[in-house]
Amino acid sequence: MNQDRWREILSVSARLFKEKGYRATAMEDIARELHITKPALYYYIRSKHDLLYSIIDEAIGQLMQGLERIRDSGDAPDEKLRQLISWQVNMFSRYGDFTNVYLANEAELEPVRREYVRERSREYEKLYRQVLQEGMGTGRFRAMEVNTAVRAISGMCNWLSAWYSGNGKMSADEIAGVFFDLVMGGLEGRREKRGAS
Amino acid sequence: MNQDRWREILSVSARLFKEKGYRATAMEDIARELHITKPALYYYIRSKHDLLYSIIDEAIGQLMQGLERIRDSGDAPDEKLRQLISWQVNMFSRYGDFTNVYLANEAELEPVRREYVRERSREYEKLYRQVLQEGMGTGRFRAMEVNTAVRAISGMCNWLSAWYSGNGKMSADEIAGVFFDLVMGGLEGRREKRGAS
Repeated sequence: MNQDRWREILSVSARLFKEKGYRATAMEDIARELHITKPALYYYIRSKHDLLYSIIDEAIGQLMQGLERIRDSGDAPDEKLRQLISWQVNMFSRYGDFTNVYLANEAELEPVRREYVRERSREYEKLYRQVLQEGMGTGRFRAMEVNTAVRAISGMCNWLSAWYSGNGKMSADEIAGVFFDLVMGGLEGRREKRGAS
Repeated sequence: MNQDRWREILSVSARLFKEKGYRATAMEDIARELHITKPALYYYIRSKHDLLYSIIDEAIGQLMQGLERIRDSGDAPDEKLRQLISWQVNMFSRYGDFTNVYLANEAELEPVRREYVRERSREYEKLYRQVLQEGMGTGRFRAMEVNTAVRAISGMCNWLSAWYSGNGKMSADEIAGVFFDLVMGGLEGRREKRGAS
């Protein structure tokens, strides 16, 4: 299959699913936007559900690829955390339609695919946990209940789906900078009133 | 109208909307769950859309009432922030169906009502901003781009809708404690490497 064509189909579908909603978007809408006939669209993809799954799979793939590369780098834990947050925030600016469709429509997937997505989502949490635990192990981060801390950080990032438009005053890098500053201060464990030096 | 009956209708509707989705829930489902006939249900409420709006209005009302009381207390800004986060996390344990229906279905509202909800949502952000700015003004919190910081904190809390079930190991108060520790560390501005004492 022509890869450029395939990517265009996914991009157009992701944009329409985001704008109109997955259920309210018909295959005809997608075909029209691509200037092809509906049968031509079915040459590339079997169903609307397959399209949704391909978009979600692509969003997770892009997200995890970057996060895994950062985790496996030799950087210090705080530098890794800075990059993890930055990668995630940048997913919303460079790949926002895909990411938003993923976060809003996971429940539409059929059980087997949904389970696959949940499995990847557990890998995602595990990855953050590894980096936080690495930092706690070296003393760079103060001890904290790690699962809740991971969900706090991922919530901060994922909630971008509710407000980030790409048209605001702050760039993705600036937003990521504020998020990191906020989180890192809490993780460093050098607060005066705790008696640390 | 009988207030207990009305509250029961809202609670049952909120639970069904959360479990099955707003669109997939029929007025018949709600009537059946309440052990009344559909015409009897229509005696209390004009439409499913009105039910949704009443649930969302109730969720926002409860949330804002608590947050405003905390903001207007004479407490120090960090104590206020601790209580704001605690109130918000506790909304998910005590009022989870309402809160989740609000966060997931705002887009279903008709334009005038949606605008009202957005206006309340702007009040919500303003309230957090006031508390952060109060803390920054007194030097208790370090300076930080305040809109992004507010959205980071509200994202952390609102993302509970994606993972909090009430059945986990951590209580709402414990989760709120971790969130506050994480956020507050980042706001205190006493980090060694910044040269503060």
